[in-house]
Amino acid sequence: MSPPHLLTLADLSVPQIKRLLTHSVYLKHTTAPWLVPHGSLSFKRANALRLPSQSLFSKSVALLFSKRSTRTRIAAETSATILGGRALFLGKEDIQLGVNESPRDTARVIGGMCQGIFARVGDHSEVEELAQHSPVPVVNALSSLWHPTQILADLLTLHENAALFGESPSTPADTSRRRVAYKDILPELPPLTVAYVGDSANVLHDMLVTFPRLGHKLRVATPGGREGRYGPPTAVWDRVVELECDKNDGIWWGTDPKEAVQGADVVVTDTWISMGQEAEAAQRYQDFQGFQVTEELCREGGANPEWKFMHCLPRKQNEVDDEVFYGPRSLVFPEADNRKWTIMAVFDTVIGKWDIDGDRWARERLQQSTEGAETAKESASEPESDSVSQKQTKE
Amino acid sequence: MSPPHLLTLADLSVPQIKRLLTHSVYLKHTTAPWLVPHGSLSFKRANALRLPSQSLFSKSVALLFSKRSTRTRIAAETSATILGGRALFLGKEDIQLGVNESPRDTARVIGGMCQGIFARVGDHSEVEELAQHSPVPVVNALSSLWHPTQILADLLTLHENAALFGESPSTPADTSRRRVAYKDILPELPPLTVAYVGDSANVLHDMLVTFPRLGHKLRVATPGGREGRYGPPTAVWDRVVELECDKNDGIWWGTDPKEAVQGADVVVTDTWISMGQEAEAAQRYQDFQGFQVTEELCREGGANPEWKFMHCLPRKQNEVDDEVFYGPRSLVFPEADNRKWTIMAVFDTVIGKWDIDGDRWARERLQQSTEGAETAKESASEPESDSVSQKQTKE
Amino acid sequence: MSPPHLLTLADLSVPQIKRLLTHSVYLKHTTAPWLVPHGSLSFKRANALRLPSQSLFSKSVALLFSKRSTRTRIAAETSATILGGRALFLGKEDIQLGVNESPRDTARVIGGMCQGIFARVGDHSEVEELAQHSPVPVVNALSSLWHPTQILADLLTLHENAALFGESPSTPADTSRRRVAYKDILPELPPLTVAYVGDSANVLHDMLVTFPRLGHKLRVATPGGREGRYGPPTAVWDRVVELECDKNDGIWWGTDPKEAVQGADVVVTDTWISMGQEAEAAQRYQDFQGFQVTEELCREGGANPEWKFMHCLPRKQNEVDDEVFYGPRSLVFPEADNRKWTIMAVFDTVIGKWDIDGDRWARERLQQSTEGAETAKESASEPESDSVSQKQTKE
Repeated sequence: MSPPHLLTLADLSVPQIKRLLTHSVYLKHTTAPWLVPHGSLSFKRANALRLPSQSLFSKSVALLFSKRSTRTRIAAETSATILGGRALFLGKEDIQLGVNESPRDTARVIGGMCQGIFARVGDHSEVEELAQHSPVPVVNALSSLWHPTQILADLLTLHENAALFGESPSTPADTSRRRVAYKDILPELPPLTVAYVGDSANVLHDMLVTFPRLGHKLRVATPGGREGRYGPPTAVWDRVVELECDKNDGIWWGTDPKEAVQGADVVVTDTWISMGQEAEAAQRYQDFQGFQVTEELCREGGANPEWKFMHCLPRKQNEVDDEVFYGPRSLVFPEADNRKWTIMAVFDTVIGKWDIDGDRWARERLQQSTEGAETAKESASEPESDSVSQKQTKE
Repeated sequence: MSPPHLLTLADLSVPQIKRLLTHSVYLKHTTAPWLVPHGSLSFKRANALRLPSQSLFSKSVALLFSKRSTRTRIAAETSATILGGRALFLGKEDIQLGVNESPRDTARVIGGMCQGIFARVGDHSEVEELAQHSPVPVVNALSSLWHPTQILADLLTLHENAALFGESPSTPADTSRRRVAYKDILPELPPLTVAYVGDSANVLHDMLVTFPRLGHKLRVATPGGREGRYGPPTAVWDRVVELECDKNDGIWWGTDPKEAVQGADVVVTDTWISMGQEAEAAQRYQDFQGFQVTEELCREGGANPEWKFMHCLPRKQNEVDDEVFYGPRSLVFPEADNRKWTIMAVFDTVIGKWDIDGDRWARERLQQSTEGAETAKESASEPESDSVSQKQTKE
Repeated sequence: MSPPHLLTLADLSVPQIKRLLTHSVYLKHTTAPWLVPHGSLSFKRANALRLPSQSLFSKSVALLFSKRSTRTRIAAETSATILGGRALFLGKEDIQLGVNESPRDTARVIGGMCQGIFARVGDHSEVEELAQHSPVPVVNALSSLWHPTQILADLLTLHENAALFGESPSTPADTSRRRVAYKDILPELPPLTVAYVGDSANVLHDMLVTFPRLGHKLRVATPGGREGRYGPPTAVWDRVVELECDKNDGIWWGTDPKEAVQGADVVVTDTWISMGQEAEAAQRYQDFQGFQVTEELCREGGANPEWKFMHCLPRKQNEVDDEVFYGPRSLVFPEADNRKWTIMAVFDTVIGKWDIDGDRWARERLQQSTEGAETAKESASEPESDSVSQKQTKE
């Protein structure tokens, strides 16, 4: 059985993306009571609840990070802890990769000792090479082309704030029950118009292959437009076309940020100068004149008056002013918090269980029953996998 | 409810300081049996004992360290492990703080994923800014002005060695009982005279706002005296005055190390050149001539013939010679060991329980009873918070 | 009781080496079921099994690494996790050792907070100095002279692949039973001829003091031979002589790699340029001409046609070509995997239990019975130490 990998959301089906989002909410709710101050009455009450999945119990996830990181790293390390395991941070200075050893050998060696690899590399081909040779799941923590875990966090944040976009808030689910209906805990979103103004980088790329498939429209402005210097690489646009995300007005792409924010429910931007592009800074500052997200830009561009703001952080003032960034439209901090819960969902399903679809149990039982195995009958009344792993670890 | 922080011992009351010391001893005794070699008879006996508090279970504490560290870091990482959690070391090279991101944003983001921040920064204003914006407790691991966890370790070491200062040793408490009377396990100290010869740096500063309040006298010598170049900053002395530590001969301050050690029961020093002051090294070596702690200095100065020596480490020979440092007067290694237990007490109470006073349970019950809540009655027979959290995690 | 250390396999008896190997297999088998994807049927079955030893529960092992490391570090961190503890990686940039603080003070301070030290230092005298002053066990993770944990992994790999060397495969032991007869799970090896062609460095040194004692013959070629520039230091050869490993044709040493591989069942090499020797690179490349391990070399030299290849990694093409390295003769990746299980065995026995011989329980009972103690009787039916520690932690 070959391990599942997650290199871009383009590789996932819509149900798989939704499953990851609902699983994130589920883990967030299950974990929350364990993180309150101990000794308080609220902690006492929490004891009636159960542990989140312990699918990383005794396991280690290697964090191969060739770039500085705050959010992604901390989200990974804290999530692994809650799942009962250990994230092992290996920076550029720490290991032999790229200095003394090929990605192929490193993938095989690390995959022989760790149960997953979370890689924040430079060129996307590096994470692809790791996935090719690793005996364990590889998850892309950021590459030159894609940033799948960021977009999961963005989507979760939008869903959680569905009420801001005109949805009537759903009844909060009772997460203390043994079986939570996932669909009850993730509020639906109406179709949104999401504007992205800035550089076509990894954050935008995973939006391009995801948002239109979920029913949202994207409006993008980059200096020079889609075919210009700051447009997407062919490798990315090919996936957009393959997934038909450019069909049915799913993506509008121009050069004017004001035009991009027209009718926008959400405005998103990112740094103009990604790590490694410091040499081009002067040129880039000049090219991105007029791209700063401000109240004025969105008013003049005709955004939905209730527009909200998102940014993957860290943020510079060039891209967005303080009024917007720290103001009531800003969802940036809940968005940052959600890095943790979405990465936890990815770790649990992809690395801990090799089961993005969440149906391993049913699948294996089905397979057994066709083989007429006796064991299938025995386990017919077994609860879902989460409960299984918890029970086992707690006993 | 806003989180508690610990930036200097000046912010704590005398009962709170004593509570942290007794809690340190309690954790030290409770933990000790778990750290012996397994498989031995002594380990077998240990099994009758209970786990120390697991108040960090599933939680993470971010160690934001912009400076090199051995003791503080290891004490923090090992303590968090014993408390069931995880300390996440983030050095200057590791994260975006100060490079790409403001302290404000960093505090909010890290506080959204970790349950506490232990910060070893440069200027004290940095840790203050973190505390201002963090949604979780911030503990000062060392700043330009204060070093609270070091002074807790110093005090614990003095109390544990009370017999050296003429106290009759108390009967060791039976820590295997469910309820340990904290006061039984921390021997009382007679009023001591403590001399500090050297630079007025963070270690001395927390002594200045603490020792006189606990009944001990401080005798300090710095080149140029209190108002000179090596005296305390105004921000520190203001707290000394506010807490009346300079009253009743609580603090004597001069320029002559021999005069400072007069009658001293304990002699303390620290490095003459703190991290960041390397450029001033030559000047400082000259100015601190005669400040090396030696047998001769203390004999000539008229110290108590039974004087003991303390130093926060790492140590250079300039400050204290080998005879004293490695000799029978030296308490430096027990003092270093106690960094662990005092930091563990701070982590448990401040970060794990948000409860420096140790009376959350009683407080919440009281509050409930005034509200006439039914739940208060149910939980009336609840044991102390430690036992609660252990029971929960072990089941 | 003074702590056990492990600085070279020369310090261990043959039974102790075998005990570490069998314990490695035992831990590998016991741990394996916990590392499969959760939620699968195979994980469900695993729950009938027991946890591996939790001898590091609540404990920390300091990894003092002054050199870059992939395998050793990851093996240590993942092993400690499985044993219930925490490995604390401290790189050259992280702590004060060698910068501001002597090895003596560092050993004492770290040994006061951690329960073991795993040190990857430069000169071997550094790890000796750590061991001399540490109150807790010190294990050599690599030094200028020795590399004991690598050779344990090599031996384990050879034993596991005994069938490749003409042994009939033994029946796999039933590791789910409470008491596993260690000898049943480690296949015996026939006497092998092992060739080493390259630089006489730490990997070879631990082979020299070990393989002949286990009945295997070593054939070594270094440019200039044993007394030449690339031969072993006196400190190493003295141990070889002391252990009589050079007797009975145990070691052949020449200058011609072809002559060395004559009759070889296994061919081993290592880098020609160890960390720190970069300045001599040009000279070394010249001196090691003809030492690259290839099919041709071994055919012409008359190796056993079924010869296998080993290398401690990371590997450069100079030392071995792709055909051999990635070919069917290569055992390099199972060898790398076994770094984990052998280091885990060392951590469990040396650091977790202070008990390399695995007979602490019997020894202590014997000692007690001669003292006529009552407790001895009570515990007479106690199972082996592993089971004890597991039961305790799980309850």
